[in-house]
Amino acid sequence: MKIALAQLNYHVGNFQSNTEKIIKAINNAQNDGCDLIVFSELAVCGYPPLDLLEREEFIEQCLLQVDIIATECKSIMAIVGCPSINPEPMGKKLFNSAFVLAEGKVQSVHHKTLLPNYDVFDEYRYFQPNSEFSLVELKGKKLAITICEDLWDEQPVFNSFAKSKLYKKSPMKELKQLNPDLVINIAASPFSYNQGQIRQQIISQKAAKNNIPFFYVNQIGANTELVFDGSSLAVNCKGEIIKQLNSFKEDIQYCELSHMDSSPTIHAKPREKLSLIHDALVLGVKDYFNKMGFTKATLGLSGGIDSAVTVVVAARALGPENVRVLLLPSKYSSDHSIKDAEDLANNLGIQYDIVPIKGIVDGFDNTLAPLFKGLDADVTEENIQARIRGTLLMALSNKFGHILLNTSNKSEAAVGYGTLYGDMNGGLSVLGDVYKTDVFALARYINKDEEIIPVNTIVKPPSAELRPDQKDSDSLPDYDLLDQVLFNYIEKNEHPQKIIDAGFDAAVVNKAVRLVNMNEYKRFQTAPIIRVSSKAFGLGRRIPLVSKF
Amino acid sequence: MKIALAQLNYHVGNFQSNTEKIIKAINNAQNDGCDLIVFSELAVCGYPPLDLLEREEFIEQCLLQVDIIATECKSIMAIVGCPSINPEPMGKKLFNSAFVLAEGKVQSVHHKTLLPNYDVFDEYRYFQPNSEFSLVELKGKKLAITICEDLWDEQPVFNSFAKSKLYKKSPMKELKQLNPDLVINIAASPFSYNQGQIRQQIISQKAAKNNIPFFYVNQIGANTELVFDGSSLAVNCKGEIIKQLNSFKEDIQYCELSHMDSSPTIHAKPREKLSLIHDALVLGVKDYFNKMGFTKATLGLSGGIDSAVTVVVAARALGPENVRVLLLPSKYSSDHSIKDAEDLANNLGIQYDIVPIKGIVDGFDNTLAPLFKGLDADVTEENIQARIRGTLLMALSNKFGHILLNTSNKSEAAVGYGTLYGDMNGGLSVLGDVYKTDVFALARYINKDEEIIPVNTIVKPPSAELRPDQKDSDSLPDYDLLDQVLFNYIEKNEHPQKIIDAGFDAAVVNKAVRLVNMNEYKRFQTAPIIRVSSKAFGLGRRIPLVSKF
Repeated sequence: MKIALAQLNYHVGNFQSNTEKIIKAINNAQNDGCDLIVFSELAVCGYPPLDLLEREEFIEQCLLQVDIIATECKSIMAIVGCPSINPEPMGKKLFNSAFVLAEGKVQSVHHKTLLPNYDVFDEYRYFQPNSEFSLVELKGKKLAITICEDLWDEQPVFNSFAKSKLYKKSPMKELKQLNPDLVINIAASPFSYNQGQIRQQIISQKAAKNNIPFFYVNQIGANTELVFDGSSLAVNCKGEIIKQLNSFKEDIQYCELSHMDSSPTIHAKPREKLSLIHDALVLGVKDYFNKMGFTKATLGLSGGIDSAVTVVVAARALGPENVRVLLLPSKYSSDHSIKDAEDLANNLGIQYDIVPIKGIVDGFDNTLAPLFKGLDADVTEENIQARIRGTLLMALSNKFGHILLNTSNKSEAAVGYGTLYGDMNGGLSVLGDVYKTDVFALARYINKDEEIIPVNTIVKPPSAELRPDQKDSDSLPDYDLLDQVLFNYIEKNEHPQKIIDAGFDAAVVNKAVRLVNMNEYKRFQTAPIIRVSSKAFGLGRRIPLVSKF
Repeated sequence: MKIALAQLNYHVGNFQSNTEKIIKAINNAQNDGCDLIVFSELAVCGYPPLDLLEREEFIEQCLLQVDIIATECKSIMAIVGCPSINPEPMGKKLFNSAFVLAEGKVQSVHHKTLLPNYDVFDEYRYFQPNSEFSLVELKGKKLAITICEDLWDEQPVFNSFAKSKLYKKSPMKELKQLNPDLVINIAASPFSYNQGQIRQQIISQKAAKNNIPFFYVNQIGANTELVFDGSSLAVNCKGEIIKQLNSFKEDIQYCELSHMDSSPTIHAKPREKLSLIHDALVLGVKDYFNKMGFTKATLGLSGGIDSAVTVVVAARALGPENVRVLLLPSKYSSDHSIKDAEDLANNLGIQYDIVPIKGIVDGFDNTLAPLFKGLDADVTEENIQARIRGTLLMALSNKFGHILLNTSNKSEAAVGYGTLYGDMNGGLSVLGDVYKTDVFALARYINKDEEIIPVNTIVKPPSAELRPDQKDSDSLPDYDLLDQVLFNYIEKNEHPQKIIDAGFDAAVVNKAVRLVNMNEYKRFQTAPIIRVSSKAFGLGRRIPLVSKF
């Protein structure tokens, strides 16, 4: 049996494009003599559709497309992810399903049992969990079909409020009792830099433990905050990897079931964290623009590290010809900052303009003078500068159609070190899930072969340059220390006392925790953040804005 | 048996304040000879705690406070909402529970069975549903305890993707088999202007059908987006209302169980929609400020209807002495707009300053002239004006500590008629769930006894005044028509074809739907919106930003 694993990039709600891709893959596989082709979870509509699943016209389209796709299946069987309607009068109206298509029509529909409802997932909002299990027959072999989270039925139960799950029957155990010859898992498993390895281990262990080959097809591509890395797998019954599809790229590969045990095995060493984050960010930016129908980006280049890394990512995602930046110096900007920014723009070959903001700053000062008479300058005047820059960048965006990229990093977003409606502006936050220390590491990763980002940008102390001789370290703990505390508090969800007990300075921990909690209001109004960690700000982290804790 | 219904205003995560309120009510009721006092759902921590429930230190505090509260229960039994820990190794780690406290300690814990997981609710994210049922004995009577959604076990199953629910055992049927003498429901049921009546009907019907008295205690107060109106009820076994607690105010009332059938019944006529919305908005603003620790508000007064209604709400919520506004005329502002704004400020007795923006506009024009040479003015220049105003208001906010209120209405938010980082600025959106036609109606409601809002503001055609002679109707359908289409699309979640079939112009419907869908990106960065309808923008409506549909 020749099996095609089709790892494609879907666009939520773009039925025409998704169906075309799926049909093209079916026709190619059919021509190449494949017996089965497997697409990822909710391939027909793209993942995650969120509340579009509550719209009748959306579900109508999903089911219409499945029928169109089915008519293309002549000599091949296709397994394609799509929502289906629950015929029971009680319960949620939808299932998250795998449709089995052959001989021009839908042969059977199999539903997801374990519905993730934590972090970025809300599947109990839309779907009824499955409770019935059956196999699919093809050429004398019996196929067990599972969907994404169904694999994770034996995840260790953490003693953690965040990671516990609703208890359901194990779909793998139920299916195993029916004696399948192979297991298929169709997935839409979002990328985070530590997820790929865990996923691979689970699949290998499951295959070996059950003595059965596994075919895992994940989606690739980015949809708003979530990046899907693909990295689909074929694993033999010893748990050895026979095929590993591309990461961060569309890929279709064929496997011969009867050769699984005799094929050479792949021992890919895990990719380094920074290279994964880099590729995820580039794909995140690229797909945001492609899928929104935009081509051109802008941002403010300050000479600092955040805008430097962001502009490199943008140039790699969109091409340097589609990136245009502004240098927006004030009287507090150092000469070297302007020079560093110019050097970087020249290294990348992107268009830049220098637009000094002094005239506008003076306009605000004069206009506000009667109101602020006798009062000292404070953070107000710093914020005005940031907001003038934000307004100038949005003016460029409005006039020429360049979408503004936000350059805030995760450390700043966490502690609220940024100006709302100023440097926090932008349609997409590129680095909002990357801590400052990792932004530096990314810069060095980008420079590994040649000096793209001026070394001075990497080695100088971080500064917002909003008042004379300002340094980030005036108001914040050193990033080396701060980022570790933030990681323990946010990603690891640790009790602050536990962080202190582990040896971190109590004053630093308490300050960091207080700043994170009091800045929910700023993050509430932030652009979507490309998620690369296991806990990003945004959809997957919902803290009440009005709370005292 | 004398029962106290304690309808209090809780602050999420403010354990000190919540516990103090609860203990004070217990002591008073105890002194007044009550046998039982009932508090609302998750009273100890406030509702909704969202992902604070995933933090160990938060749950620790919840359980500590319950023990503290229990020690105060000497001659009285208290029922108080609080999360509890699921002792089973599998499943979600928490239950949404009612703790029964008496004789100084926790006597029993009863869990919520039906967990809402739609619209603004995500309870399957945190809680394991209950599956065991028992009653509580007090003075020879048997009490059945239910929690909020447990009441809604017989809601008609709509043929709708949005309103379907996971199927669970009916908690009312299970409890009824144990022959209770009364039913208690502790709730945190968010206000919407059509919710109160439905809720009252359900409770009356349930009481009559089961021939059993019902005691319903709802939370009051606003937490970020959600307003809770209270309106708690005691209903006798004929379904007649014996007590109805205040709406939008804290209230504690006592009922004698043995007098339920002989007490006079209350036939309150349903309150009018506009008076409900008005009171909800005032409470929403008041609690946002109180609970965030703010006292003073600012906003830009344009002479238009949205800022007029917003400033009246603010003055009523915070006192006119705590509201300070800016009039920010440009060369396109009409004289009557400035006069209308001044008249309103004077009518309310609030401080105002007139700050013309011309100087700053010129600064931007000059600064951008080299970049924009030879290009016509367009929406860019309109947005610059809005962003200058936004920056000036934020400058006042930063300098003096006045929190900026956003004045966008729901029609504008829906179709994206507003400038991001400009007039969309603000910490809280007061009117973001009120359609423009209802904003006009609110203005007339506010003026019912005296002309607070200048009549000219109400009768003149709406305009953003960002270019000469601009009117909203230049770019949008008339609000009377637009708002009906939006209501059908958003609140009623109707298929656009169905709206057209109902007689609305296809071009208007298609334009409205297109505008709603293409402006997700603006709403993504909006301030929290006080929710007054059954479907508000924000937490309860999650549309993918990057999608094509």
